[in-house]
Amino acid sequence: MSTFTTQPEACGPDLAAFALAPGFHSAATACGLKPSGKLDLGLVWSDGPCSAAGVFTTNRVQAAPVLACRETLAAAADRVRGVLYNSGCANAVTGDRGLADARRMRELGAAAIAAKADELLVLSTGVIGKFLDMDKVARGVKALRSDAALPAAGDAARAIMTTDTRAKLASVGLALGRGTVHVSGFAKGAGMIHPNMATMLSVITTDARLEPARLDRCLRAAVERSFNRISVDGDMSTNDTVLVLASGASGVAVGDGEEAAFTAALTEVSGSLARQIARDGEGATRLVELRITGGATEREAHRVGDSIACSPLVKTAIHGNDPNWGRILAAAGYSGEPIEPGHVRLWFGEGDEVQLLERGLPMAFDEARASSMLRQDPAIVHLDLGLGSASATVWTCDFSAEYVRINADYTT
Amino acid sequence: MSTFTTQPEACGPDLAAFALAPGFHSAATACGLKPSGKLDLGLVWSDGPCSAAGVFTTNRVQAAPVLACRETLAAAADRVRGVLYNSGCANAVTGDRGLADARRMRELGAAAIAAKADELLVLSTGVIGKFLDMDKVARGVKALRSDAALPAAGDAARAIMTTDTRAKLASVGLALGRGTVHVSGFAKGAGMIHPNMATMLSVITTDARLEPARLDRCLRAAVERSFNRISVDGDMSTNDTVLVLASGASGVAVGDGEEAAFTAALTEVSGSLARQIARDGEGATRLVELRITGGATEREAHRVGDSIACSPLVKTAIHGNDPNWGRILAAAGYSGEPIEPGHVRLWFGEGDEVQLLERGLPMAFDEARASSMLRQDPAIVHLDLGLGSASATVWTCDFSAEYVRINADYTT
Repeated sequence: MSTFTTQPEACGPDLAAFALAPGFHSAATACGLKPSGKLDLGLVWSDGPCSAAGVFTTNRVQAAPVLACRETLAAAADRVRGVLYNSGCANAVTGDRGLADARRMRELGAAAIAAKADELLVLSTGVIGKFLDMDKVARGVKALRSDAALPAAGDAARAIMTTDTRAKLASVGLALGRGTVHVSGFAKGAGMIHPNMATMLSVITTDARLEPARLDRCLRAAVERSFNRISVDGDMSTNDTVLVLASGASGVAVGDGEEAAFTAALTEVSGSLARQIARDGEGATRLVELRITGGATEREAHRVGDSIACSPLVKTAIHGNDPNWGRILAAAGYSGEPIEPGHVRLWFGEGDEVQLLERGLPMAFDEARASSMLRQDPAIVHLDLGLGSASATVWTCDFSAEYVRINADYTT
Repeated sequence: MSTFTTQPEACGPDLAAFALAPGFHSAATACGLKPSGKLDLGLVWSDGPCSAAGVFTTNRVQAAPVLACRETLAAAADRVRGVLYNSGCANAVTGDRGLADARRMRELGAAAIAAKADELLVLSTGVIGKFLDMDKVARGVKALRSDAALPAAGDAARAIMTTDTRAKLASVGLALGRGTVHVSGFAKGAGMIHPNMATMLSVITTDARLEPARLDRCLRAAVERSFNRISVDGDMSTNDTVLVLASGASGVAVGDGEEAAFTAALTEVSGSLARQIARDGEGATRLVELRITGGATEREAHRVGDSIACSPLVKTAIHGNDPNWGRILAAAGYSGEPIEPGHVRLWFGEGDEVQLLERGLPMAFDEARASSMLRQDPAIVHLDLGLGSASATVWTCDFSAEYVRINADYTT
């Protein structure tokens, strides 16, 4: 159904070739929120009103821009015009003043594209507990609409980065009966990444035409099998947001008959972005793919995978190419799911090349070969629970000393 | 009520001065389970039958010695004679053969002290998924009763260590109306440490006299506020066990009137051992004490503290002496508890020296002073939830690159 137009994920993004869906524009600038002088302010907007949907962090501590986005979607999900976002400051744990700043940011962005204030969405990412420098934001928004701004979508994707080492981009084309629609988006996230969202922000655009309620349904289904299936460090942020804007510029409507295909396309873009985030986990050297099969339910398989994905012991072992599989079993065992140790089977490798456990019993295996499977990118671990036929795939990364170095000294 | 007879925890144990409760003996040897040739087999026993109680891992994957201990306690909790334990091999995920090995180990230990097989408890710790070398265990048990064995209680405590850098010991004396009783024990644990138990083993002895049901009640209460309040890495092991043996050798009975005092003494020993484990967390440079107050319930305060204790971002920040308090708030926010961000207050320091948040709003603070509070051992963080009057203290450690180095290369 779809044509994948991004390069292989492991090779890194082609910033120059990246484009948003037809009908969307972008601009990026450096307004000084990042002391480094790197890009830190971006705007994505459409020519006309869009359907919009969002999925937000479930953290009890929600950042001001999350609250502002909820306001916008409650008031104007059928006519959103764009997204203004900054990196370098999360505007989280900033109380009433923070919310006023987020609303002011929304007004500034809306004015820049001659939209109404309630037609804009806003995102912030960076350090928690600092107020936004609104003078810098105001000057930056002016610059965004000047010749000095960078118009390339690749630059818009860079302006959202914090500790990311590379931009995360994904695009697909989807041929429907009455024409082709495009889904294209970018994301950021490297630390504080955990299922049910993270310091994870994503903006996805599409030229398909569909009403907000349907778009919301498609987004929730896509996020459940993509962004909610990754973990870098088990920390869940205060700002996590995935936004999707549908401009309808293609003239191709997504109705009941096309909803499944559109959800699949959105899941493909979301999944690619999610894997790019996991691979770029702070200090990570490779992607880890955990294939959990044989679950009684998909939820069970997901929770077992999540428990393994969050285990520092599993992730340090993979970093060391160490086939210390007992840690995988131990993490599955404390997942809270009623697994049966005597039923499980375990393999490493894309094609289950090395089997380590057969129905709960250790097998003799070639340690060097098992180690070489963990060295691959992605390193693939397959755990069969032997309880049913449900499955889930969860992505994480290995855990290196570099993670500690990055995070022991982030604000100072 | 009690006299604390161990040295200050931060100074490390005095192995030479350590003694088990009166009436208990010990022996330790190196039987070759550890390739390093270090002590790896120990036996603690009493002159006569003891009341015994145990608390075990809640991991679905339970090691063979855990199953064997459950058998012993079901059959003979009123007449246990001792505990045989090894390090270097966890005998976990070893199926029927592993259980047979654990039972055989129990027989060997029992024979060594002329007890019945069902009167012994067994513990194992080390790598998961390897079978015990029973020839080495059998030869080792013989050596334990020879002149070659080391009889000091400090050596018994060393024989249970794996990646621990120091032994964990604690003893208290408790003056009751009719005499003094002693509670003295040791523990091991450095990685795979998480509330609800860990790669955490502990053997506690007492010369008090009390029936198994009362001892079990006291132990559960003590564990809930000690071993279940620590986290090193959020990983929960397959072998975690705390055992307590009461010989009654003092002749002093613990009845209804003394139960609270005895529980307090047991909690003091357990708490000291738990803090020693957290301080010796793999790669840790200091103990971190999280004081959560103002909870609606103790369970809520405990869960919020647990969430913070498990956050790699919080723990790396503390390692870097970085007062990046937003991470503490974020971790509290995803604890699953209904905290109110607008109510929380946050301080660093033993005496709340530096306040960072007042009812959800960031305060101006002296960064150098806040940083110096995190540099202390223990580093003390006090979070008031502003919801009620319940509190809980949770202990963890900072998170250094050394943790990764230790765990990326443990089996190989």
